[in-house]
Formats: sequence, structure tokens, C-alpha cells
Amino acid sequence: MNEFVGFIGIGNMGLPMAQNLLKAGYHLKVFNRTKSKLSPLLKLGAEAVDRPCDVVGPGGVVITMLSNDEALKAVMLGPYGVLKSLGPDSIHISMSTISPDTSRELAPLHRKVSAWYLASTVSGRPESAAAATLGIYLSGESAPKSRALPILQKLGRHISDCGEDPGAANVVKLAANFMLFSVIESFAEALAFTEKQKLDRTAVMNMLCDNLFDCAVFRNYGRLLATKEYEHAAFKVELAFKDLRLALKSGESVAMPMPFADSLHNRFLNLLATGKADWDVCAIGRGVDEQAGLA
Amino acid sequence: MNEFVGFIGIGNMGLPMAQNLLKAGYHLKVFNRTKSKLSPLLKLGAEAVDRPCDVVGPGGVVITMLSNDEALKAVMLGPYGVLKSLGPDSIHISMSTISPDTSRELAPLHRKVSAWYLASTVSGRPESAAAATLGIYLSGESAPKSRALPILQKLGRHISDCGEDPGAANVVKLAANFMLFSVIESFAEALAFTEKQKLDRTAVMNMLCDNLFDCAVFRNYGRLLATKEYEHAAFKVELAFKDLRLALKSGESVAMPMPFADSLHNRFLNLLATGKADWDVCAIGRGVDEQAGLA
Amino acid sequence: MNEFVGFIGIGNMGLPMAQNLLKAGYHLKVFNRTKSKLSPLLKLGAEAVDRPCDVVGPGGVVITMLSNDEALKAVMLGPYGVLKSLGPDSIHISMSTISPDTSRELAPLHRKVSAWYLASTVSGRPESAAAATLGIYLSGESAPKSRALPILQKLGRHISDCGEDPGAANVVKLAANFMLFSVIESFAEALAFTEKQKLDRTAVMNMLCDNLFDCAVFRNYGRLLATKEYEHAAFKVELAFKDLRLALKSGESVAMPMPFADSLHNRFLNLLATGKADWDVCAIGRGVDEQAGLA
Amino acid sequence: MNEFVGFIGIGNMGLPMAQNLLKAGYHLKVFNRTKSKLSPLLKLGAEAVDRPCDVVGPGGVVITMLSNDEALKAVMLGPYGVLKSLGPDSIHISMSTISPDTSRELAPLHRKVSAWYLASTVSGRPESAAAATLGIYLSGESAPKSRALPILQKLGRHISDCGEDPGAANVVKLAANFMLFSVIESFAEALAFTEKQKLDRTAVMNMLCDNLFDCAVFRNYGRLLATKEYEHAAFKVELAFKDLRLALKSGESVAMPMPFADSLHNRFLNLLATGKADWDVCAIGRGVDEQAGLA
Repeated sequence: MNEFVGFIGIGNMGLPMAQNLLKAGYHLKVFNRTKSKLSPLLKLGAEAVDRPCDVVGPGGVVITMLSNDEALKAVMLGPYGVLKSLGPDSIHISMSTISPDTSRELAPLHRKVSAWYLASTVSGRPESAAAATLGIYLSGESAPKSRALPILQKLGRHISDCGEDPGAANVVKLAANFMLFSVIESFAEALAFTEKQKLDRTAVMNMLCDNLFDCAVFRNYGRLLATKEYEHAAFKVELAFKDLRLALKSGESVAMPMPFADSLHNRFLNLLATGKADWDVCAIGRGVDEQAGLA
Repeated sequence: MNEFVGFIGIGNMGLPMAQNLLKAGYHLKVFNRTKSKLSPLLKLGAEAVDRPCDVVGPGGVVITMLSNDEALKAVMLGPYGVLKSLGPDSIHISMSTISPDTSRELAPLHRKVSAWYLASTVSGRPESAAAATLGIYLSGESAPKSRALPILQKLGRHISDCGEDPGAANVVKLAANFMLFSVIESFAEALAFTEKQKLDRTAVMNMLCDNLFDCAVFRNYGRLLATKEYEHAAFKVELAFKDLRLALKSGESVAMPMPFADSLHNRFLNLLATGKADWDVCAIGRGVDEQAGLA
Repeated sequence: MNEFVGFIGIGNMGLPMAQNLLKAGYHLKVFNRTKSKLSPLLKLGAEAVDRPCDVVGPGGVVITMLSNDEALKAVMLGPYGVLKSLGPDSIHISMSTISPDTSRELAPLHRKVSAWYLASTVSGRPESAAAATLGIYLSGESAPKSRALPILQKLGRHISDCGEDPGAANVVKLAANFMLFSVIESFAEALAFTEKQKLDRTAVMNMLCDNLFDCAVFRNYGRLLATKEYEHAAFKVELAFKDLRLALKSGESVAMPMPFADSLHNRFLNLLATGKADWDVCAIGRGVDEQAGLA
Repeated sequence: MNEFVGFIGIGNMGLPMAQNLLKAGYHLKVFNRTKSKLSPLLKLGAEAVDRPCDVVGPGGVVITMLSNDEALKAVMLGPYGVLKSLGPDSIHISMSTISPDTSRELAPLHRKVSAWYLASTVSGRPESAAAATLGIYLSGESAPKSRALPILQKLGRHISDCGEDPGAANVVKLAANFMLFSVIESFAEALAFTEKQKLDRTAVMNMLCDNLFDCAVFRNYGRLLATKEYEHAAFKVELAFKDLRLALKSGESVAMPMPFADSLHNRFLNLLATGKADWDVCAIGRGVDEQAGLA
């Protein structure tokens, strides 16, 4: 278990994930644009490097957890990019929420240097990352998967193999987030509807979660929506909107009409236009409330 | 347990509910417009009556489970209507999915004859009704609730008290159905999106249900949507649309904007316009598929 | 031209219409629930009556211009209703914006007493009513139309015959108003879009109206939208919403999906929820501005 | 009038525009990727060149009319790009429908070589281009406008100055096209609504255009929609969708919620998913008809 792993991207999600790998005994070389965010990892024994390409040597494993396609491409293909350090048997586990097409574009570039690209997207908020209970969607060629699995098992509970299309795990992740936003929107509309009928939001939320809607996604977001805790961000509106736009763009590329996604597009733009870019994604409920005259 | 109970409305849901009461030892007087539907109940010992008002005597309990507001009003207020038979201590347990305003209108008419009106809406498909695992939302004045409870406990598992507003249980039911339709629409869009990206619908459905969306509503409808079993109706499109319209109308009465409900309104009209009134509500997925060029 | 005409419904539209008939030499008997609104007509020689049925005698012509289906039905079918006074050769020119189905229901009731029902809906704001430049859609059986025409020619410029279906003129009117609301919504979105790009709303509005969108509906509403004159009501939000709901309901009756109508439904509910029921319909633009963070 | 003008992009719109300039006495050097399309111009005396940079010499004027941002950037900035040939007093009149941000990005690159960039977008179908009755929106610095005007006056009737922001003419064009698509969608919904009520589409279309909607945009598209002439493309669905996406993207850049644009996004994706990419934009009406069970 004293394998070296490179880790790039130490944000809300990347930090607890990297901590779990350190706790599990991996040696970590870490890179982050903002260096100050590395300190909790250095205390646990991680080694900071100055350039992306330094996180990994020939044949090594590198994990990326960045905020968008551009950041990932910069880190992989830019000056001192990681791709330069990869060679035979190297594995890049790409965990960011990015466009399926970016994965489909990067995978062959990895094969050119005999390295492997795996898309391995995650489902869950930072608390799940800390508890190593993330859901993980994995896609890409089969060969490198068995080596990646023990690492991923330190990060999450459920690992689903989405097949060999390198973009598949990204497709599933975008679908999951779209469904998540739809859950929030529909629950928010339902609670505001009942509030305007003079019912108690929390009581209604509990009833609904005790019956048809008895799962974590409804309970977690239902609690935030019922009590109108919209501001404290675990998953910022602007990042959620980035994911929705990726889903819409990916939908455009295959001519897929998604009316709920279009409706959410309007919702998110309203949140951004009224200064809520840094609120939590459940601020969708605030948009609902405002338009209903409840806020 | 040898109490007499009147039961009006023997359809997909009413039949298994009445059967459960008979099995639990209640004596049932039953009325249904279409008499032939009563035979399974008669075999279990129920007594058929010819007029609504004959299902219940003074001080008795009557359950109604009808398809809409008009049917309920006809049975209660029309010629030989039930209201004429109600008196002090009579309880009407109104279980149909109807407008909150109809409950708010009927409750005081019951009090005029010293009877009680309870709205007691149910959540679940016919299988749950048969298994007596329905979720039940109960609202109305407190006095009659303790007498109604043992009866309701034979019909469902979870009984949630929504308070004294007679329409509250109807509000919660409409909110629940709206959320259900939203779940189906979003899941259907997500699965078609992944199918157009060449992923396997069932595999994706299982992955999503194994992670964030791990509850009955996603699993049950997810399976139907993944395998495109759209036709066999447990909950017909036209009845589902009736419920959506009740939600929209109730939303209009309190000026509640609900963009997802508006989007679903368009979806249902498309299903009706293309001959799917008798399909199951998960035919929402067929509408999604058709518009995506997948059907 | 000294024919007697009954006129019921003296509101924003009815008043200038009745004035035009008086100026044209007709004798008017007028009824209005709020009597004070009649005074400008009495000065011009109209005769006020106390009951709807008194505005017209056997064989006479009566015009109704009321705010909704219920008001029309009350005046026609209620106690002292007009229908009682109608007989052979009587003509009822029904000019309110009502449901096509109400016309289809009233027409045969008129034939039962050998009277005629014509739906004759109008297009235009109060200014056009005053200038007698309304557009008029006429439907119903052919026989009475030639007698109605000279009267209608005093009220409007363009009279379009929609055929014999008594509801047809109502259908066209609902379609026209739906298109009008769509024009306002799209223009409002376009102007807010350009404002957020730092362009001048009035300049843009003029450019658009000088090119593709060179007609009265764009110029009139464009000016109000460009200068944000949203409050002064010629056509109140709540009346416009009534018309939209009639269109949606009529669309439901023939299973017609109308996504723009659904989107407008959401817009109007937002306006009502935020206290703009009495603003002008162009307050649609205010809703757009608010959600864009411009107001 | 024997000035030399370079012209790049000879498509549906570019061809008649270039023809008008030739007829007006300008000398034209023309470039098009597909050379065969140049022949009608060569007959009129135009000179074909092999590389974009050859259409214009120092101080000259060049017009571009290309299908999208990428094509324009390739022609300007790619190998043998036009920018290399521009110098002091050169004017680039950029007439393509492109993103405002592309204009804002290109304008300073022109100033670096002391040349001028003007965005000069056009409103109208190929017939208007042929008749030189296009509407033209012009933006950019003032200095070069007086030299550009006589040229533009040979192409269109109405020239509106949108100010100095180089992207302004693009913003107005995107707003105009969004409004155009909204007109088509709302008219299509209205006509299908009336058809389902058994009214005649053409009769209704004429009535509406004779009253409130009395302008070219309603008459032209109304005729196509009424008679369901959806296929013969003057403005292809896929190009229209490109423009809608530019509007949505530009809206995203300023956080502008546009619910009608979101609804149209869904409509266009449905048209693409069902094989109508090459139909005319009025195929929006076909989408409406299909979803209404009318096609």
C-alpha cells in the first residue's frame, strides 16, 4: 500500500479525498494552483510539487479533481502538463465533472504515450467524500481498471463500471446531477405550494420523505429546503450551473431534447442574475420562493 | 371489529382497499356505479346497495374512493346522496384524489348535520393498496380521527396527520403526485440522454438507483422506464393528468408559479394528443423518447 | 338608424363601444351591475334599466360585453336574465372574451326560443374601442349576421367571419390574445437581454420595429416595454391571465400542447404572486426584468 | 463607384448581396471555400481568388458573410487569413450572424494593424437580400462608418446605428432572430390550436394578420405555417438553431434568464432529433403539429 499517487486539484471535494488516500497509506504528491490549500495534506505527509508534471513518474498513477474542462486540459496539456510525464502503464484517473467529449478527446492522447485514461466521476457532497462513501462511476478501457480499483475503494462505497467508452462515466455523472437538480426544483415547488396553502414546510417534507420519497437525496435536500437554508454552500450554484450546461451541451451533441433541463437553465440564470452564484445549489428553492412572493 | 363501514368507489384502488377491510373483519356495505365490479367483494361477504345513501346509517362510517371531484359531489350531494344519511357522529373518510377546495367546501356541510368529514388521501399504486402498505395523509378536525385510525391502519402503513384544515391531506397528495411525475420526467429524460450516448438504459438506471436515487419511487419507475414498459396501466395517463390539473388549479388559487408543473402540463397534453390516455403514467418516458427520435 | 339596442357590461371596453353606438344614432337601453358607470352614457341619451331582462324586447338586439363566462351566464340565465326576454328574431351579440364552450352551450338555448346567438369578439385596447377601429371576429349561424353587421361596423374596422360554429370567434380571440402575450414576453426578454449587454432599450426597440417587426402590436407594446411603463392598466394582468386560462382550458379540451402558453402561465402566476394583478399586461416585462436582476 | 471590395462567403445570403454590389458597379474580389458557388458572380465580372488574404489590398474594404464564428475566425486569423492583408484604413464589414463576443475580440485585433472592424448584421431572408431590402444593424467605431455606408446602402434599405460597442449589431441580430423564432412558435401553436377546434388555418391566419398582427413577419411566416410548407428551406433549422444557441450563450454571459429561448431550445432539439435539420425554420410548426397529433 506504499504506492505513490499524484493528486491534482485540492478543493471542497479533492481535499477530503486526498486525506482518505493518505490515511489509507498511500504516498501522495500533490499539486494545486492555490498552494495554501495544500497545508492540511502536508501535515499528513503529502509532498507538494511546483508543476503538474511533477506529481507522477513513469508508470505511476495520477488523480485529477478539477473544477472544469479548461482546468483539466490546462493541467494535462499545458506547459509542464501531466501528459509529458506519463508513459507505459501510467494511469490517469480523471474524477472531475467534465464533458464526455473531453474524456473522449483525452483518452487517445494518453494511448499515444501508452498510458491509460480512466474517467471516474463521483456522486456525493463533501461530507460523503470525507466519509469515503461517494458513489463512483468508472469508464474506459478494461486493462487499467483492476489497478485503479483498490485506490477508488478508499474513496467511495459503490463503484459502477460504465463500460469502455471513456466518456461514459461523465455521461452518467451529468445525468445524475441533472436528476438531482430536478429533485431539488420539484421539491422546492412542492413545498412552496404547500406553504402558500398554509401547511408547515417541515411537516410536509417529513410526510413526503416517510412515504414515496424515502431516500437520502430527498431527505438531505428536503431538510435544507424546508428550513430555507439556502446560503451555506457545499455545492455552489455556479458549479451546479456549470454541470447543467455540460449536460445541455452534451445533449445538443446528440440532439436530445430535455425540457426539464431547459427549465432548470432558466432557474439557474435567475439565481446568477440575482446574486446567488455562491449560494448552495438548494438556493433553487430561494428562486422558487421569490417568484411565489414568499421571500 | 364487527363495525359496519360503507364503501363507495370500487376501482383499481378501491377494490383492494375494500378487500383488506373485509379480511380484517369489518362488515361492508358497498356501492359502485358499475355493479359488476362488486362481485369480488360480495364473495368476501360484502353487501351491495342500490343507492349511495344506503351504505351508511346514522352514526356510521363511510369511505369514498372516487375518480374525481364531480363523482364525489354527485355521490354526496346528488339525489339519494350520502349526506342525507349522515348525522351526529357519522364520519366520512374521503380518500379520493380531489381538489383541496372541494374538501374545504364539503367539511362544513357535514358539520351542519353534526357529521364529520376527514380527508384521507393515499400514496401508492394498486400493489401497495393490496399489500396494505399505502401511505396515508389525514386531515380534518381532531375529534373523529381516533375512531378513523384503526380503519386506516388496515389500509396503509404510514399515517401522517396533516392538521385540521380539511383540504390539507389533498394538498399534500397533489404535491406528492406532482413530485412523482417530476421524478418520472427527469428519469425519462436522463435515460434517453444516456441512450443517445450509446449507454445501456438498464445499466444506467441501476447505477443511479444504487447511488443517490436509492428509493422505491426511483427503482419502481426506473425499471419501467429503462425497459420501456409504458403501456400496461396501473395509473392511467388521463387520471394522472387529472391530478396534475388539480395541482395547477390549486396553485392558481394561491398564485403559486410552478414551472415544472407547467412543463408536465405540456407533456401530458402531448400524450393525450397522440393516443396514450390509457397508457400508464410512465408513458411520460414514451413522450420523451418520441421527441428524441428514439421511438 | 333609430333602432333600439340593449347593452350590458359598461367597463373599460364596453363604455366607449356603447358611446359609439349612441353617437351613431342608436337608442340604447343599458344595464350594468355598478350603476355609477352608466352616467357618461345617460348624458348621451341612453336609458338605464334595473334588470338585465329589461334591456331588450321581443325581436330586439342585445349586446353583452362582460368580464368572464360566469358574469355572462348570470346575466343571461340568472333571475331576470336576458334569455327570458328573447324571442323570434331576437339577436344576442356576445362580445365578451369567454370560453368557446360557453358560446357552444348558449347558442342552442337561444334557438330554443327562436332567438339567435352570435359570438363577436373584439381585438384592441380601449383606445381602439373609442376610435371604433376594433378588429371584430364574428361567428354563428348566417341568418342574423346581416342584421348585426351595421351595428358592428359602428364599433370596429375589420369584421372577419369565422363561420357557423358559435364558438369560433371565441377560439380566434383566445388565439389572438395568446399570440399577443407571446409578443410581449418575447419582446420583453429581447429588450432585457440587450439592456444587460449595455444597449439602449428604446434604440433597440425602434430598430426592431423599423425592420422585421413593423406593426402596431410591436410598436405599441414595444414602447411601453422599452420605457418600462408597466403599471398603468389598459388591460389588467388579472384579466389577461383569465384569457390565458381560457386558452389553456380550451386547449385541454382538444388535447393541444402549447409550450409557450405553459410558459406564460408561469409568468402570470409570478406577477399575481408579487402583487401585480392590477398592473397592465405589459408588466410581463417587469417579471422579466426582476428575474434578470434589472428591477 | 469603381471601388474594389473583397467578399468572402457566397451562400444563400452572400450570393445575392454580392450580385447587388456588382450591379451597383463595384469591382469584387471573391473567395469561397466551395469554388463552384462563385460562377454566377464571375459571369457578372467578379474576380475569384484562391486565398482569403487575396480578396483585399492595403486600405481596402472586405465584407465577410459566413455561417458561424469558427468560419469567420478561420478566414480572418487562419493561414492566409485576411487580417494579414489589412492595414491602415482597411475596413472589415463583418455581416455574419456571430457571437457578440467574437466581434468584441476581433475589433481590437484589427486596430492593432490600424484597420477597422464593423459589425453589420442583416435582417431578412434571401429574397430580401436579392431585393436589397435587408434591414442592417451597424456597430463599431464611428470613423469608418461613413465609408461603409454607401456600400451597405446597396444591400439594404434600413441601416440602424447600434453604437460603438463592436458587438452591439450582433446583440441586436440575436435578439431579432430570437423574436422571429418566438413569432413562429406562437403562431404555430395558435394555428394548431384553432385547427384542433375545426377552424380553417388559412382563414384564421388571414384574420389575425388583418388585425393585430399586420406586418411582414406574421404574414410571411403565417402563410407558410397555415399551408404547412415546412420543408423548402430559405433559413435552415440547423442554422436557426445555431443563432438560438448564440443568443443563449450570450445570455449566459450576462446572466439573462430567457424562458421563451429555453422553450425554443427544446423545440429545435426535437426538430434535429427527428431529421429536420435541413427543413426551413418554419418547421417549428411541424414540431407543434406532431406533438398535437396533427401530423
